[in-house]
Amino acid sequence: MNKKELFQNIKNKSSFLCVGLDTDLTKIPQHLLKEEDPIFEFNKTIVDATAKYCIAYKPNLAFYECLGVKGWIALEKTVEYIRTNYPDQFIIADAKRGDIGNTSSMYAAAFFKNMNFDAVTVAPYMGEDSVKPFLAYDNKWVILLTLTSNKGSKDFQLIENVEGDRLFEKVLSKSQDWGDENQLMYVVGATQGEMFKDIRKKAPHHFLLVPGVGAQGGSLEEVCKYGMNHECGLIVNSSRGIIYSDTSENFAKGAQKAAKELQAEMKTLLDKYIK
Amino acid sequence: MNKKELFQNIKNKSSFLCVGLDTDLTKIPQHLLKEEDPIFEFNKTIVDATAKYCIAYKPNLAFYECLGVKGWIALEKTVEYIRTNYPDQFIIADAKRGDIGNTSSMYAAAFFKNMNFDAVTVAPYMGEDSVKPFLAYDNKWVILLTLTSNKGSKDFQLIENVEGDRLFEKVLSKSQDWGDENQLMYVVGATQGEMFKDIRKKAPHHFLLVPGVGAQGGSLEEVCKYGMNHECGLIVNSSRGIIYSDTSENFAKGAQKAAKELQAEMKTLLDKYIK
Repeated sequence: MNKKELFQNIKNKSSFLCVGLDTDLTKIPQHLLKEEDPIFEFNKTIVDATAKYCIAYKPNLAFYECLGVKGWIALEKTVEYIRTNYPDQFIIADAKRGDIGNTSSMYAAAFFKNMNFDAVTVAPYMGEDSVKPFLAYDNKWVILLTLTSNKGSKDFQLIENVEGDRLFEKVLSKSQDWGDENQLMYVVGATQGEMFKDIRKKAPHHFLLVPGVGAQGGSLEEVCKYGMNHECGLIVNSSRGIIYSDTSENFAKGAQKAAKELQAEMKTLLDKYIK
Repeated sequence: MNKKELFQNIKNKSSFLCVGLDTDLTKIPQHLLKEEDPIFEFNKTIVDATAKYCIAYKPNLAFYECLGVKGWIALEKTVEYIRTNYPDQFIIADAKRGDIGNTSSMYAAAFFKNMNFDAVTVAPYMGEDSVKPFLAYDNKWVILLTLTSNKGSKDFQLIENVEGDRLFEKVLSKSQDWGDENQLMYVVGATQGEMFKDIRKKAPHHFLLVPGVGAQGGSLEEVCKYGMNHECGLIVNSSRGIIYSDTSENFAKGAQKAAKELQAEMKTLLDKYIK
């Protein structure tokens, strides 16, 4: 999917919501455990209930890896299910990979060729040759960790260098030598508030993937106020706040309601900030 | 495995060699492709041929992930095979993971609980809460990316901050608030040469995992000259240089010869630098 199509989907649905599929066997409704593949059954139901209100899904790889082979099967089935039934959804592998060139090429093949994700989150620490192999695919995206939503984001990302830039700003500027806003997005946590202003100084036209509303406490209003651009430029993720909003047998209805509420908020914000 | 046991294994074998299992279907001897699980067959044969000369194995996760479910099965079987047949081997998941706390916990469970690796490589970009969940396991290790072997290591790792430290030095100092040399190791590329002196200033007692000899061009002599400490303090990895040294049906012999040669070099260096 290219940038124009992504923005078109956002306009069509008046939504820039991404539903995070952090699917955890200990948190899903327990009646699903009798199914052959409870993770996939849960995901399928969540997707069917929420697809109308969101433009992206983001399986978090850790939740699948920790189940071994079974998790991997559930992940592949989930991606395939979304791709087949909701072809306009943008599918993000939240994997935070990154390694030396020949190894990153293998990761890129895993996510883009074998599984047909649209995007993968990548960690910048190892620099250019660790990121570039992911940029070699047409209409696929790298979403680079930049200023994350967690407390530990302060440990290294905010360190100021001798030229007066903080590390996350260096990531923003350096990475633009490797690819442009048609291939690259950045992860910026919703908890970062006004810092979105600093992000937009260095990356006015890029899409930002924004986790951290809901369970982590970020404010959607603030994210939009400081982070939205004329093509929206935001994909805001909610995971736990949607998929576990109801853990009874009626979980689909609960998830739908939570997604619909966020979408309604997003519509208001789109109307407010994009003239 | 604890630090004392690791050093004991190094002394027993006069080796600090780690064999990297970057197993690639396009590079392994083609007669193996008729096997039901060519990746596992290759790994098993390589392990049997080299175990006498090394103290660690390091499957590189990307090479397994890019094969999907089949790759994951081969990985699990490989770890199980080494664990059962060579219980003194230190097994490293070269995964370069790292995410917000609740997600890193899932990765830690994947590698330490489900698959019984001894160590996992972790990317530091997201800071404390992304690393700590991996440190919660007794006798398990985090190997933190610090100064990597690739060209891109210059992009961010060498950036000097306002206090006069480079980013990799900040990673070294900051991470020592989270765990000590009995739980934490650092990845330092063999291509970094004299920089090992700077590493040792900040981390004199830690083990370093050193990739980059062989295909990437690092010098073992230099690594030892500047990086070895009184407990050796080095695990030096070679992947392609060993496992693909012979791609005929006699690949086991070729790998054994390559491992044996490196081990002989290591013995000389241990004798030279550890009195």
